[in-house]
Amino acid sequence: MEILFTFVPRQDQQQRMKNEFPEVDFYFLYRDKTRLSSADIIVTYGEDLTAEDIEVAEKVKWIMVASAGIEKLPHQAIEARGITVSNVKGIHKTPMAESALAHLLALKRALPVIYQNQRNQQWERKIRSSELNGTTALILGPGAIGAEIGRLLQAFGVHTIGCNRSGAEASNMDEMVSFEKILEKLPEADYVISVLPSTDETKHLLKEEHFQIMKNSAIFMNFGRGDLVAESILLNALQENEIAFAVLDVFEQEPLPVDHPYWSMDNVVVSPHISSKSGKYVDRALDIFIPNLKKWLIDQSVPTNLVDMEKGY
Amino acid sequence: MEILFTFVPRQDQQQRMKNEFPEVDFYFLYRDKTRLSSADIIVTYGEDLTAEDIEVAEKVKWIMVASAGIEKLPHQAIEARGITVSNVKGIHKTPMAESALAHLLALKRALPVIYQNQRNQQWERKIRSSELNGTTALILGPGAIGAEIGRLLQAFGVHTIGCNRSGAEASNMDEMVSFEKILEKLPEADYVISVLPSTDETKHLLKEEHFQIMKNSAIFMNFGRGDLVAESILLNALQENEIAFAVLDVFEQEPLPVDHPYWSMDNVVVSPHISSKSGKYVDRALDIFIPNLKKWLIDQSVPTNLVDMEKGY
Repeated sequence: MEILFTFVPRQDQQQRMKNEFPEVDFYFLYRDKTRLSSADIIVTYGEDLTAEDIEVAEKVKWIMVASAGIEKLPHQAIEARGITVSNVKGIHKTPMAESALAHLLALKRALPVIYQNQRNQQWERKIRSSELNGTTALILGPGAIGAEIGRLLQAFGVHTIGCNRSGAEASNMDEMVSFEKILEKLPEADYVISVLPSTDETKHLLKEEHFQIMKNSAIFMNFGRGDLVAESILLNALQENEIAFAVLDVFEQEPLPVDHPYWSMDNVVVSPHISSKSGKYVDRALDIFIPNLKKWLIDQSVPTNLVDMEKGY
Repeated sequence: MEILFTFVPRQDQQQRMKNEFPEVDFYFLYRDKTRLSSADIIVTYGEDLTAEDIEVAEKVKWIMVASAGIEKLPHQAIEARGITVSNVKGIHKTPMAESALAHLLALKRALPVIYQNQRNQQWERKIRSSELNGTTALILGPGAIGAEIGRLLQAFGVHTIGCNRSGAEASNMDEMVSFEKILEKLPEADYVISVLPSTDETKHLLKEEHFQIMKNSAIFMNFGRGDLVAESILLNALQENEIAFAVLDVFEQEPLPVDHPYWSMDNVVVSPHISSKSGKYVDRALDIFIPNLKKWLIDQSVPTNLVDMEKGY
């Protein structure tokens, strides 16, 4: 049994796996595909496998993606072979919700201005700061991550509106609305926060009309996927002050090109797709992988966190 | 009946008072003491009255301080005359707790680094970010503000240790410790957050030994009063990396002198005593003042939020 990691965990994490599975041969190889053809299982962040790689990896039966999004996997090649795919859905919720709250609170409490005044050695007490308390958030994608964001926002006294395909109830949302009826609720939102995955349904879900109907004071936060909105539309909404601010962790093109206007816009925060980062990330991924692997070694049964390749999540 | 405000509320706030009390003459005069001698009540932020002013204000029977700290009032002159003093204790808790969480989350989620990389147009995903979840905070002064900070920290999965004079139970604290025994608990704290007022007991409460026993990774946050620790001691602890970081909203000398080392230190955030600021501040102060004034006009009875000038809060 050979398992290929296409990234390199810390030594103690490698040792943890070797101790748990002395009978397994582990290879930890970043950007090195020499062990593809003999691997039975591949553990990847999901961005480094091509259809040709799948062809070479003729023995592989299970791909474990240590990420949430699977849109960069070669779907056709994987489905044709019937390869099992699982992810680590759920482990992003704590760091991502903390990132979302950090960015939101920073803007409300004027931290970028405070930092700037410090750089200029300026004791400036005339600062516009406001509060989360008593405001309203619309959360696109109230799943595990969105619900955790909702829970924290509610602790701050924020009214939460969840928005999903069906409009069916979701945790920590004071009310719900379906994608179809989102225009009715957008005018109430002080913040529009997306943690939606990239699927056929969510691609370019937000259009010009959505930004036009938002409050001019609205803060838009995209922590899901960059293709939720065509970039030209979002850029225009920000340049025309149809909304006040955007915090973007994801982009249509990543890395964001060096000459992109976002870099120098006063009403945009560019976060380089790191909102889920945490010192605890790989440990938590292994907490999911290890029990799954134990089960797999016994009866090759389907692991938890199975991904439906057709639905896309 | 004449009431002198030594600051100038917004027009709508002035009108609100005039409507409530048509029989009262209101004066809103910033840095203008011409109406002192005829004022029956003074409303002040508490930093602009001298012992001589109290002498001139011979009719005044009630001073309402639209702040929490009263250490800059001329205590002797006020006590000698038996003037009633009240404050707006309680209205700071929401903005101050949001500020504390904003600064803490910003550091944990690496926002200063993210902002800096954006200024340099750098897409840099190798960022050290961590989580509040699973950490421990020691809160000096678990009163109204401290308890609100504790409540929010607990929502993030932070263990809270409250610290007050007696060690008696306080809201939203997982455990308590007295001032006297603080050295026993400091080594456990990832964050030491003070919202203590300035009193004889809290002045220079933290000494060299306290910073030496803190974790080297500890974040110290002072949102109370600057004299909690002698500045030379705090500066030294930061320069010697006995603690990792300080977020300071208060200082021994305010404004912080232009040539002070804090301004340019990488491990210090200088916040110019604004953590309680909020667009809702004066409205909330009036929510306390107006009912008190109604009662006062009937029977000159003691208002709520009475301050004990001897205790200092």
